[in-house]
Amino acid sequence: MDYYALPIADLIEQLSKLPGIGKKTAQRLAFYVLEMDPLEVEKLATSIINAKEKIRYCKQCFNLTDDELCSICKDRGRDESLICVVEGARDIVAMEKTREFKGLYHVLHGVISPMKNIGPDDIRIKELLNRAYDSQVKEIILALNPTVEGEATSLYIAKILKPLGIKTTRIAHGIPVGGDLEYFDEVTLSKAMENRREL
Amino acid sequence: MDYYALPIADLIEQLSKLPGIGKKTAQRLAFYVLEMDPLEVEKLATSIINAKEKIRYCKQCFNLTDDELCSICKDRGRDESLICVVEGARDIVAMEKTREFKGLYHVLHGVISPMKNIGPDDIRIKELLNRAYDSQVKEIILALNPTVEGEATSLYIAKILKPLGIKTTRIAHGIPVGGDLEYFDEVTLSKAMENRREL
Repeated sequence: MDYYALPIADLIEQLSKLPGIGKKTAQRLAFYVLEMDPLEVEKLATSIINAKEKIRYCKQCFNLTDDELCSICKDRGRDESLICVVEGARDIVAMEKTREFKGLYHVLHGVISPMKNIGPDDIRIKELLNRAYDSQVKEIILALNPTVEGEATSLYIAKILKPLGIKTTRIAHGIPVGGDLEYFDEVTLSKAMENRREL
Repeated sequence: MDYYALPIADLIEQLSKLPGIGKKTAQRLAFYVLEMDPLEVEKLATSIINAKEKIRYCKQCFNLTDDELCSICKDRGRDESLICVVEGARDIVAMEKTREFKGLYHVLHGVISPMKNIGPDDIRIKELLNRAYDSQVKEIILALNPTVEGEATSLYIAKILKPLGIKTTRIAHGIPVGGDLEYFDEVTLSKAMENRREL
């Protein structure tokens, strides 16, 4: 690394810690930053610090927000009887883009994973149960990723919710729209077969 | 963009201005930053500001440095009679990695390009000529990229240097080591034929 002056080497090192950014990309980005307008560079650095400082969890659904409650929880037009449970805040964005779901969310911030030493108490399940006790809630939709851990977490939550008499559903597994049958694994295909519907 | 709280939207926007970082990657990086250790986030932001503030051009070769002269120009062990001319500071790193070249460099910071309105006075050609007048310089090696603009710039510089009686050479064009003949274009192949050597 002694090809670079220290501040460049340092910048490359910091950038290459980001996900999906290897040494080569970090180099390219670092040189780009050096050629950027100083004002733009400051904006970039400030936005990083700002986001980290101002963003916290919504106290109701644990979405990311810069306020007490996130914009979805604050929105009085949403159906408070429906809660869609997701793994991370990014999943909310994906879901919102469909413009189909008009209920509220609950972000677990992870899934149960004995391999990574993450138990039910390490994610926001307790908070979900507290919300579920609210008489307004009629249905909880589990929209966790279809991984082994996601499935296990869904089953765990469903098992706790059942005695409370709250309808618990899970989003459908199957072939994505536009997908090509031959490229999907047998588990996806058998799930798709299993969940077939009459036309 | 109203899916995100303002500081996140702002961070995503700033990140997506970087080269090769699209909207999706910017989103992923932004969410990663939000989950990073606050100390690491500060280090990242500081390294960006630091690099931009401290890095300037070496007053001799225009390489990037945090000092008056870059580490190569300062190195008394290098052959001052040889100057390798490159387009950008990144090319120096590529060249240094070969550990073959022991002379000095000269960074043009661009190539002549009438299309982009870049003339000979917009890049560091004048400064190269000033260095060439120095009686110590025996050979100038042009190592510009083999693009139309790079070629034109090489020819332009060679034409000016010729009357000064300084040996001017250009790095060889041909098939890269490990390359496969069938994947190279006809210009590269004909250059490789043209520059063939007796074994």
